[in-house]
Amino acid sequence: MTLLQLLDYAGVAVFAATGALAASRKQLDIIGFLFLGSITGIGGGTFRDLILGMPVFWVGNPAYVLVCVGIAVLVFFTAHLVESRYKLLLWLDAVGLSAYAVMGAAKGLDASGSPTVGIVMGVLTATFGGILRDLLAGEPSVLLRPEIYVTAALTGASAFTLLDFLHVPLSISALVAFATAFLVRGGALKFGWSFKTYKSRPGRRPEDIP
Amino acid sequence: MTLLQLLDYAGVAVFAATGALAASRKQLDIIGFLFLGSITGIGGGTFRDLILGMPVFWVGNPAYVLVCVGIAVLVFFTAHLVESRYKLLLWLDAVGLSAYAVMGAAKGLDASGSPTVGIVMGVLTATFGGILRDLLAGEPSVLLRPEIYVTAALTGASAFTLLDFLHVPLSISALVAFATAFLVRGGALKFGWSFKTYKSRPGRRPEDIP
Amino acid sequence: MTLLQLLDYAGVAVFAATGALAASRKQLDIIGFLFLGSITGIGGGTFRDLILGMPVFWVGNPAYVLVCVGIAVLVFFTAHLVESRYKLLLWLDAVGLSAYAVMGAAKGLDASGSPTVGIVMGVLTATFGGILRDLLAGEPSVLLRPEIYVTAALTGASAFTLLDFLHVPLSISALVAFATAFLVRGGALKFGWSFKTYKSRPGRRPEDIP
Repeated sequence: MTLLQLLDYAGVAVFAATGALAASRKQLDIIGFLFLGSITGIGGGTFRDLILGMPVFWVGNPAYVLVCVGIAVLVFFTAHLVESRYKLLLWLDAVGLSAYAVMGAAKGLDASGSPTVGIVMGVLTATFGGILRDLLAGEPSVLLRPEIYVTAALTGASAFTLLDFLHVPLSISALVAFATAFLVRGGALKFGWSFKTYKSRPGRRPEDIP
Repeated sequence: MTLLQLLDYAGVAVFAATGALAASRKQLDIIGFLFLGSITGIGGGTFRDLILGMPVFWVGNPAYVLVCVGIAVLVFFTAHLVESRYKLLLWLDAVGLSAYAVMGAAKGLDASGSPTVGIVMGVLTATFGGILRDLLAGEPSVLLRPEIYVTAALTGASAFTLLDFLHVPLSISALVAFATAFLVRGGALKFGWSFKTYKSRPGRRPEDIP
Repeated sequence: MTLLQLLDYAGVAVFAATGALAASRKQLDIIGFLFLGSITGIGGGTFRDLILGMPVFWVGNPAYVLVCVGIAVLVFFTAHLVESRYKLLLWLDAVGLSAYAVMGAAKGLDASGSPTVGIVMGVLTATFGGILRDLLAGEPSVLLRPEIYVTAALTGASAFTLLDFLHVPLSISALVAFATAFLVRGGALKFGWSFKTYKSRPGRRPEDIP
């Protein structure tokens, strides 16, 4: 198994765990764990493959679905042992984000040859699973949290694209880019890193606008 | 018209009716009925075809869209006659769920040969239309309701996959699997069947976590 | 550059601006502007190409993504100058809606030869970007606003399809259809045009239904 394949399975597994943790926060039944776990686990990659016009990865290799099922069952029986499921969810999401930023950029570059497409696919693939999970579980979206999130995916995807352009060997590029993304997102989670947000007034509710 | 084709049109029609009923609950205009009805009616199958890499069914055969339009107009003029539109919506959704669990599993098996993919496609196809409808109409998601929902789709898709594996003739497999899914979901609606949900504490709001 | 290509870039650019304005209303950081701007800008066309089974337009030509990036940066530095960002958002959305209703219908007709598919693709392409933006930004959906919205897309897509059927030259059909859609949506914004909505009672909350 190559490093990219390992990253791929790891991304699927940790995103599946975040989906199952969201199911546990919503007190769903075991099937709810399987459903949210699987959709979150395979969502980002499915989206990536559709956009790039490639066969969807888990249709050709259903082992990915079985990984999601196994992880969801594991979370169902162990989630009560965790003190803060939401913190665990955020940290696992950080791992998945980093893995998928690399995988998305690698597949995007491979399919199009364009660095722009590589970076965009890295960001979209890394963030899509979490967006889907939060939408389906009715959680507040990770996108709208104040600390850095999309930026971590952007950094990882850009790092991979740059190193690939410089002909650095694939496994080194992947490892360095994964670590970069994880450091950025991990720092944001640990230390609350954030950019200066847009300084102007917040939006009014539509019905308050004359 | 084969039994599978009939199930297909029936699934589209009843999902279109649930979308139009959601439009009526939100007091939209006739175009809102057409829009939500059509999207709910063709959403699940569109998603199924995209994932399996097949041509989207209604692009090749726009009659499906015309079915949605007809149903939406019918609901626009008759919905006020119904005592509880939401109950009717849930029961029609149960019919659509059962029809699409079978259709999704059949197309998934056909395209991939893998039972896992058949089952997953059955579940995704059956649940996607309802998820989309609830998201667009701002209704609470059927997914997060306490009684059994995804399980019914899973049962129907698994039953079809098993019977197909045992070389039972297609029309019998389809009929038995449809009935199985509908009995499970109908029982849940009628008698409030539910699994024991996850027993631990519910999730805190993100801002309450120290 | 043909008129259709111009409409295409214009649609991407103005939808990107509405995404960035939504980011400013939510006080996101610069990356949030880039992300929401890009997704809103390329969302509708991505969806159109996936459904029609065509290569996704920006994967083959990443210049579209760079347009979104440029527009998002521009909005980041100028949005505070605007008195009502939400009104500007709605008017730009009207331009994008009109451009995409034409582009969607043109590509849909081209790919399928069916007027029904042309009209449906016009409506879906025109409305998808705004739906996505509102979902991701947590804004109330434009779909559920009382004034005419989907109808404007439907009018533009139908006008284009009709003129194309009558063998009117492409650039005239496109211009007339764009203007028609914009007049309908602009009139709705300016004068509050709306259809009589569904006259019956609004839906109860699910938990209030006996």
